Amino acid sequence: MSNDKQFVKEITPQSEDFSRWYIDTIKKADLMSYSPVRGCIVFKPDGYELWENIQKELDRRFKETGHRNAYFPLFIPESFFQKEKEHVEGFNPELPFVTEAGGEKLEERLAIRPTSETMVGHMYAEWIQSYRDLPLLINQWANVVRWEKRTMPFLRTSEFLWQEGHTAHEDEADARKETMQMLEIYRDFAENYLAIPVIMGQKTPSEKFAGAVDTFSIEAMMKDGKAVQAGTSHYLGTNFAVAFDIKFLDRENQQQFCHTTSWGVSTRLIGALIMVHGDDRGLALPPKIAPTQVVMIPIGPAKTREQVNARVRELYAELKKAGVRVMVDDDPSQSPGWKFNEYEMRGVPVRVELGPRDMDNGQVVLVSRITGEKRIVAQDRFVEEVQKLLTETHQEMYDRAKRFRDDHMAQVDTIEDLKSFLEQKRGFVYAGWCGSNACEAQVKEETGATSRNIPFEPEVHKSTCLACGEAAKHTVVFGRAY
Amino acid sequence: MSNDKQFVKEITPQSEDFSRWYIDTIKKADLMSYSPVRGCIVFKPDGYELWENIQKELDRRFKETGHRNAYFPLFIPESFFQKEKEHVEGFNPELPFVTEAGGEKLEERLAIRPTSETMVGHMYAEWIQSYRDLPLLINQWANVVRWEKRTMPFLRTSEFLWQEGHTAHEDEADARKETMQMLEIYRDFAENYLAIPVIMGQKTPSEKFAGAVDTFSIEAMMKDGKAVQAGTSHYLGTNFAVAFDIKFLDRENQQQFCHTTSWGVSTRLIGALIMVHGDDRGLALPPKIAPTQVVMIPIGPAKTREQVNARVRELYAELKKAGVRVMVDDDPSQSPGWKFNEYEMRGVPVRVELGPRDMDNGQVVLVSRITGEKRIVAQDRFVEEVQKLLTETHQEMYDRAKRFRDDHMAQVDTIEDLKSFLEQKRGFVYAGWCGSNACEAQVKEETGATSRNIPFEPEVHKSTCLACGEAAKHTVVFGRAY
Repeated sequence: MSNDKQFVKEITPQSEDFSRWYIDTIKKADLMSYSPVRGCIVFKPDGYELWENIQKELDRRFKETGHRNAYFPLFIPESFFQKEKEHVEGFNPELPFVTEAGGEKLEERLAIRPTSETMVGHMYAEWIQSYRDLPLLINQWANVVRWEKRTMPFLRTSEFLWQEGHTAHEDEADARKETMQMLEIYRDFAENYLAIPVIMGQKTPSEKFAGAVDTFSIEAMMKDGKAVQAGTSHYLGTNFAVAFDIKFLDRENQQQFCHTTSWGVSTRLIGALIMVHGDDRGLALPPKIAPTQVVMIPIGPAKTREQVNARVRELYAELKKAGVRVMVDDDPSQSPGWKFNEYEMRGVPVRVELGPRDMDNGQVVLVSRITGEKRIVAQDRFVEEVQKLLTETHQEMYDRAKRFRDDHMAQVDTIEDLKSFLEQKRGFVYAGWCGSNACEAQVKEETGATSRNIPFEPEVHKSTCLACGEAAKHTVVFGRAY
Repeated sequence: MSNDKQFVKEITPQSEDFSRWYIDTIKKADLMSYSPVRGCIVFKPDGYELWENIQKELDRRFKETGHRNAYFPLFIPESFFQKEKEHVEGFNPELPFVTEAGGEKLEERLAIRPTSETMVGHMYAEWIQSYRDLPLLINQWANVVRWEKRTMPFLRTSEFLWQEGHTAHEDEADARKETMQMLEIYRDFAENYLAIPVIMGQKTPSEKFAGAVDTFSIEAMMKDGKAVQAGTSHYLGTNFAVAFDIKFLDRENQQQFCHTTSWGVSTRLIGALIMVHGDDRGLALPPKIAPTQVVMIPIGPAKTREQVNARVRELYAELKKAGVRVMVDDDPSQSPGWKFNEYEMRGVPVRVELGPRDMDNGQVVLVSRITGEKRIVAQDRFVEEVQKLLTETHQEMYDRAKRFRDDHMAQVDTIEDLKSFLEQKRGFVYAGWCGSNACEAQVKEETGATSRNIPFEPEVHKSTCLACGEAAKHTVVFGRAY
């Protein structure tokens, strides 16, 4: 599969044009292709494999917390969207509609799901009768479609892949506990699996999910200082329960509306992963998600090749046995230098080199993708040294991303401050906010920055609103976002 | 999730009304719900879990044979279907079209994929340049839509889940090898995982995939004698390569068209699984796919409960440690008899009973779902005896299904023979066929039976065509089908 890759000769440096760097990188690493359908991409095997690893890891965490998977229809009758007022306003502009099928015009137009609260709500009303049916904890892995005006591979595509959890509970307390539990799973997953530090917090009313009472998010900073909302968890109150009549007989034999939640992450995580860790050499994948964690490259002249390759194969077998995802590239038609560049561009966390001199000395060379550090280690400590370097690499990547974010956060008192911050430096700011939609809208209009969230643990507390100067109700993180 | 289950009081006996038995069974076992969208079902957790197990097992087999997963868009421009003449004729009547999106009428209508040969063909033309890019071995797990007139849960739904493999090769020989390899993977999977015996063979021209040169299938017999096509593998020749311009520079530096294949199985396998193994007590799941392989039920009076439960927990831990999917039901509010029925209805392959007398004797009782046989075994041989019974259960279920099929296969010489066979007995027949479409169509019209396939290994060879009486070209399996 050569075309997309060959399309990019050199990766544009990040400092020159970050967007071009991103596209060059994902093309050259062969992660995706543009498709002939507007705003839809093809996930090529190297890109899709990242999603498979995300799925595997999250699915395990969902199941450990008692959730089960199900599958709901792609099509949603148009009338369903009318039942929840905010929901229809939020999603209607982005809906594609099926109007004909099997050669006939449909009586009711069918929307392609942008999210499934309405369909799930309809079914839950049928399934839930009693408190004994609660909590109902279901997740779905699915494709969804939102007809976006501006798209960007992985980060914003018309069709994307995601998971959407939908749960129903006896009361607010239990539903809120679930909402927070899932947000915490997303935070833990982002930080400890993807090595992406995130800011946890609550969305402002104007940025919350259409139909939610409260929306919570994890927000990540890309290397161009822009934000990616990396996961959201919504407490929906009884909004969808009332709209779809999801009722149950409680322990006192009274009819009650359920309290529901929903939560999701999508293939945009792949985009975030690339923009947080990548550099001018291309992709840099954190070890836990990297499909290939270690690439082994034999070096040296032709006359020692056989002997070196044999030893590489032995070490490979040891590593494989220890559960490390490792490959060997002993293709004699490519130079070691070419291979070094290739696997750096593909983001393989650790490279192993072995040549005749290393053979003589009973050693092997480990090279870190992210730091470039070379470690000469004894062959009889090979497996543990590789594992150690992988563990350190995860931590190093997280620390670097965290340091970058900390270096690109400021606090501002006024919209003018925010403007000059965004002119001089990329990043997020902490600012006070009075709580009015008007002030938030003014910030957006004048600076292009939106409220990311109201962080649970802000590093500073601001006392006045950056827009109107009145007393601040919250300290908010603002930033430009994808 | 009580509603669907409570809906069914008693499962209708198979002999009374097989279709009602089927619907009763899948409702009572809580596998699905009807959705508000015509012909689309909701896969509830207990149903979806069967699909998850199918996915896990097949995905492993695909990857072991060098395939990788990717993801192509849901939407396919209408014009793509025009490019392959047979393909458009076969699929156009079943296509739903998106005509509006984001509040605007689309310039070109977008079909919802019924299968992805066209989109894949378009992309492969872009990706493949040289013989070095071949073979290209890709699979996709996805939802597809075919606007069916008559639907049946799992077996035929407007939207369904499936995998579709798409591969491109240098020449016919390599593509045909792939086609056969994947068919063999399906056969092995059906027989050794699902315990469903299948007939491998080639589809007649009128039953082949629209756009294929040759289609091969595995066909299974349900307990009502009807057929389910359980998997297909297509050699597409250069049909799609010519239509979409999938060319490569060969080893002699000449431009050549690729030879392509596609192959798939879908959620209809869940329907087949139920109709092959289920009985009047409900589901019967083969051990390898059963989400719960063993249910443990403590019995006896309240006064020994604590002691018995403690021992059950110990034995449970042993079984779990050995990798068996086991659960305990020690709910004191339900009687053992109720539980026995419940888990039989749900198809759990093995039940374990432990009571005070068993405690005294150091023994435990194993009960087979499929045969009803009770085995009293020593507790210190518990794990191995359970594993043995699970292995035997798989074999027993396969053997029963095979015996049923053999008992319901006949050979016929004429259409009249076939008619009277179908009136007296359910099942498949072997018959000679001259090779003409007209004769095949006549059989279908007069009997409702279609050619299932031309088996690779027919048990008999017939010399004359059942319709025209001329010399037979092939021995064909005919049967009514879902």
